[in-house]
Amino acid sequence: MNEESFITEIGGGVCAALGVRASAATAGIKESGRPDMALIEFNPPAEAAGVFTRNMVCAAPVVLCRERVGKGPLRAVLVNSGIANAYTGKRGLDDAYRLCREVAGLLGCPEEEVIMSSTGLIGRPLPVEMMEAAFGSLIDSLSGKGGSPAAEAIMTTDTRPKEFAVSVELPGGTVRIGGMSKGAGMIAPNMATMLAYVTTDVVLSADAMAPMLRAAADVSFNCVTIDGDTSTNDTVILAATGASGVQMEGEEALYRFESAIRRVCLELALAIVRDGEGVTKVVQVQIEGGACVEDARRAARSVAESLLVKTAINGCLPNWGRILAAAGYSGADLEQDSMSLRFDDIEVVRKGTPVDAPDMLLRGVLERAEYTVTLDLGAGGASAVFWTTDLSAEYVRINADYRT
Amino acid sequence: MNEESFITEIGGGVCAALGVRASAATAGIKESGRPDMALIEFNPPAEAAGVFTRNMVCAAPVVLCRERVGKGPLRAVLVNSGIANAYTGKRGLDDAYRLCREVAGLLGCPEEEVIMSSTGLIGRPLPVEMMEAAFGSLIDSLSGKGGSPAAEAIMTTDTRPKEFAVSVELPGGTVRIGGMSKGAGMIAPNMATMLAYVTTDVVLSADAMAPMLRAAADVSFNCVTIDGDTSTNDTVILAATGASGVQMEGEEALYRFESAIRRVCLELALAIVRDGEGVTKVVQVQIEGGACVEDARRAARSVAESLLVKTAINGCLPNWGRILAAAGYSGADLEQDSMSLRFDDIEVVRKGTPVDAPDMLLRGVLERAEYTVTLDLGAGGASAVFWTTDLSAEYVRINADYRT
Repeated sequence: MNEESFITEIGGGVCAALGVRASAATAGIKESGRPDMALIEFNPPAEAAGVFTRNMVCAAPVVLCRERVGKGPLRAVLVNSGIANAYTGKRGLDDAYRLCREVAGLLGCPEEEVIMSSTGLIGRPLPVEMMEAAFGSLIDSLSGKGGSPAAEAIMTTDTRPKEFAVSVELPGGTVRIGGMSKGAGMIAPNMATMLAYVTTDVVLSADAMAPMLRAAADVSFNCVTIDGDTSTNDTVILAATGASGVQMEGEEALYRFESAIRRVCLELALAIVRDGEGVTKVVQVQIEGGACVEDARRAARSVAESLLVKTAINGCLPNWGRILAAAGYSGADLEQDSMSLRFDDIEVVRKGTPVDAPDMLLRGVLERAEYTVTLDLGAGGASAVFWTTDLSAEYVRINADYRT
Repeated sequence: MNEESFITEIGGGVCAALGVRASAATAGIKESGRPDMALIEFNPPAEAAGVFTRNMVCAAPVVLCRERVGKGPLRAVLVNSGIANAYTGKRGLDDAYRLCREVAGLLGCPEEEVIMSSTGLIGRPLPVEMMEAAFGSLIDSLSGKGGSPAAEAIMTTDTRPKEFAVSVELPGGTVRIGGMSKGAGMIAPNMATMLAYVTTDVVLSADAMAPMLRAAADVSFNCVTIDGDTSTNDTVILAATGASGVQMEGEEALYRFESAIRRVCLELALAIVRDGEGVTKVVQVQIEGGACVEDARRAARSVAESLLVKTAINGCLPNWGRILAAAGYSGADLEQDSMSLRFDDIEVVRKGTPVDAPDMLLRGVLERAEYTVTLDLGAGGASAVFWTTDLSAEYVRINADYRT
């Protein structure tokens, strides 16, 4: 990724932007007794956009978010971990609306200004009273330093909190973009839920944000795969308080801001991949020479999701045949005799002909914790990137042994 | 599957049909020194149809087969294991044509009447001279009892040979259908190649056979999945010698013969699944209530290929949420509130509501070596079936540790 000079990494996570406070509390949803609720508060209320799971089976809080995000300003986002409130029918919807109404009452805002997300076990109702009992401390502890506690409270099987923030020099002044994410957990009956909240203090309308968030998610959250399963609860929210007073005017401002949003989304997405269950390696799958972008993405995804490729990565095996074959069945157009393949800078296939790469050099790349597989389909000029992980025996152990 | 009274299981494998002989030989392609070449001979020459890999990256022998199968009678099929002759460029094609020409010369038939398949390592040339040196013994040992040796010679990482044969009572007389298959091996850089050869002695034209084979493959070979990867060499051949003299005339004959072909294909396909790498369980995924057949197949495949579902099967976990979610992201139309799910006869979700199934009973099903997951999408009347396996730590170990 480009380290653009107008972007500077800063601290503060989801609270890095002006006008954002956050907090965490323990309601007792998780049996472990660890923090399981987070609140993000916007003051002034924020314009917002969202990207949600495409799974036809979707959880109650996603239904609520779809109804409210982008339709008016948001005052707060409530997040709980431990129970996903998925496949809970009408009761689940009632619970989600009730919890948001309760938070709105305590903050003194219209109930439509509060949304929520849930992650954890599916098929179980939320312990609504227990959650409500913790609202007082959740609201009392709202603070500009609440980013880290909040990032920790939304974890399920994540081994570490995921935060990232930058400041961006726009022509009109400096703005901040910060965020937190969680993922990783494929442990049953959790649904590998990916949640991410990105906040900024630039002045931006909901209508302008929606396509920006969609574009950034398409090259970050939608380009990472651990096991190919799509959760019922996946949610990415972008919220802009406007508290910096900096307007986004002109091409240069747009370019810089969009670059920064992509950077934040990518860092939050990669943090999820790096913390994937049983993950020992992260591999960037770079497809070039596609007949069109859709083809390049199709091939990238197919390679990234192939079990044979992922086990080969785990074992540091130079099995380029598995990679070519996965591209071959992806549905993407390709020219068998024009395909080329590299592991980082070590070429293994050149225009359809296997190259005898020195085993020591190849091994050197394959043993790295992160490397890039570059595959040229030889069919055009389009490219795409996916990030994937190895598939380890540990992944299977985690997902086969877990029992609620 | 229906045990139709007009179908009787018999021995003989691929040689069960009149006019079919087979043999095996050891050319030294495999480092193990085990048999690595098989020959199936048809006398009289057989009408034939084929179904091949849809992978855009396909091996030389598949190119040769596509050119010859269905265009005229076949006298013989040569199969080698150990090397796949995939990604070997022009040389690979030359080798395949040369080997077929050589066999044709020895059998005294036109070279177009011989086809071949290969399975094994990719990116390596065939040891043509070594193979030719073994042709004499391969042809000398052709016999009606050669089915088992041939089934053994086409194995790669298969742990056992796969054969099945039946006799079928048609209105015009008895005919036989027999076959052999290999698969299982996902070991790098093998490509999970699935090969199957089905022979019969009914009188049948190539034109009539093609749609029959396609239909039978669609509900057998194309409905099994171990790891979702598609090989560069997958090949299914159906050959009819007509040596029984029995014509296939009338609706009843067609119905019975097609049922029997499906049965043979399904047994050969299930034998591959049961012998999958690291497989401890085989699960039938039965989708009902689909809006259309394509939707039902889409949902069946998505559930069958989900890593979370496959690890849950491995661990005997009752994680119905993973199954619903996999159907949810399949692209199939479904009604979340009308979905029902059973493990064999134990209901766990009824019309959108989780059922508290007695844990002991549920556990009893999940610990079976084979069981059926029945998922009703609640969206229509279409159904589809897939067979899948568990994903075990052993699978990962095999595929990550193997090194050529």
